[in-house]
Amino acid sequence: MFDSGVGGLSVLSALVRRLPHEDFVYLGDTARLPYGSKPAAMVRGFAFELAAELVDRGVKAIVVACNSAATASLPDLASAAPVPVWGVVEPGVSAALAAHTGGPVGVLGTHRTIAAGSYQAHLAAAGIDAWARACPLFVPIVEEGVADGEIAELVARHYLADRPADLRTVILGCTHYPALVPTLRTVLGPAVALIDGANATAEVVADGLARLGLARPAAPAPGRVLQLVTGDLESYRHVAAILGGPAGDVLPLRLPLTPRKAWMARAGVAA
Amino acid sequence: MFDSGVGGLSVLSALVRRLPHEDFVYLGDTARLPYGSKPAAMVRGFAFELAAELVDRGVKAIVVACNSAATASLPDLASAAPVPVWGVVEPGVSAALAAHTGGPVGVLGTHRTIAAGSYQAHLAAAGIDAWARACPLFVPIVEEGVADGEIAELVARHYLADRPADLRTVILGCTHYPALVPTLRTVLGPAVALIDGANATAEVVADGLARLGLARPAAPAPGRVLQLVTGDLESYRHVAAILGGPAGDVLPLRLPLTPRKAWMARAGVAA
Repeated sequence: MFDSGVGGLSVLSALVRRLPHEDFVYLGDTARLPYGSKPAAMVRGFAFELAAELVDRGVKAIVVACNSAATASLPDLASAAPVPVWGVVEPGVSAALAAHTGGPVGVLGTHRTIAAGSYQAHLAAAGIDAWARACPLFVPIVEEGVADGEIAELVARHYLADRPADLRTVILGCTHYPALVPTLRTVLGPAVALIDGANATAEVVADGLARLGLARPAAPAPGRVLQLVTGDLESYRHVAAILGGPAGDVLPLRLPLTPRKAWMARAGVAA
Repeated sequence: MFDSGVGGLSVLSALVRRLPHEDFVYLGDTARLPYGSKPAAMVRGFAFELAAELVDRGVKAIVVACNSAATASLPDLASAAPVPVWGVVEPGVSAALAAHTGGPVGVLGTHRTIAAGSYQAHLAAAGIDAWARACPLFVPIVEEGVADGEIAELVARHYLADRPADLRTVILGCTHYPALVPTLRTVLGPAVALIDGANATAEVVADGLARLGLARPAAPAPGRVLQLVTGDLESYRHVAAILGGPAGDVLPLRLPLTPRKAWMARAGVAA
């Protein structure tokens, strides 16, 4: 799996819980974050590059554990890559539809995710109105470790001020946002369902691996978790601790990554 | 001049006001921002790369208009580059010393700038105690366009809560922070001098060009201003407008930049 940085660790944690005997390689591209404010074509290129790195390392499947990268690269990356690829958007939408009790569904995410409109398109395909809001201060607030204080609450009130009165389902469309759940509950009240795509993604991946005959048979020993980071290891460990990332080795990964592949060129990813 | 993004536009504006008949080329490395949270060695490499790009474009001098880049690359870059190089730290410290009326001097900046300790070292060399505080939420707050609202005030109170009682001089050690001056005045009160290094840097550059015989003679027509941006042009123009950047052409600059130079290799910048 890969992510622009540490946010995807919430997805990694969910996967490790659901599939404890599988091995995981997590690429955190902290040297080039944030993806949420970068051009779509640039983020799409990063996603293909990280996927190629994972393919070179022999993974049997890929999870795009970053909403900004998933909205910028899917479904193209899934069509092009030589292994199955799953994102976090469709599982999140499915979980929201399962929890939906009427009214519009809210989508909170980065500028990139909201502008890409993938959540809104999936909801529209299901006949549901979306209320989408870009919340660019949420990621720095979480990474600063002030997700449950008065700053976070004030910022959340600011972003949510003009929400529809009948909003009862809200998708957390960024992997950092689960850290803001207590604050969002205070602002939105207990009746609003907050949908975190991490667990839903873990279910989709578990089902997909089983369906494709790729699941590892249950074993007494847990699988290994390797985290590879393009930027500063110390900063990564610091923020990973705030977000409650899983244990495992954390090693540096040097940019630039592996050379361009034929399957990337066929998908129109420039060298 | 170069900057990690748009923050240095406050320095560009000051330079254009002070030296209206000079031409300016501004490189905004928005594709790789933020510099403030990246490892020092990485930011140092970016600074040398951007300086080489400017040298290739025939500039007669370089201003490092980003505190994070200046603290990571100076004085090495100034020693290595084939043209004069000025940063924003020393002018800012000089302006603070000129305004100083006793007590410690506060320094507000990014994680990178505060951790590098350049401001603190310059103040210590002048026999002044520094009170330094990293304020990582300030940049996203300014770029969000909420610098003068209740969010900014609450965040400022959070960062400044444990300031010394006798703090009467505060250096704005990040080029985004001038946008926060009204808020900082509210929090700190009218008696605290807020030092913005932009004007001080323009004075240092004007004096330096004159001293080195590099100043362009006064001319009736104003000079040209060219802005080159590594990331998304639309995002750049959006944030530049919030920050009140000067007029002039804005064009894309593709990464990677020019090949490594001998003077970079001599300074230990890896290819």
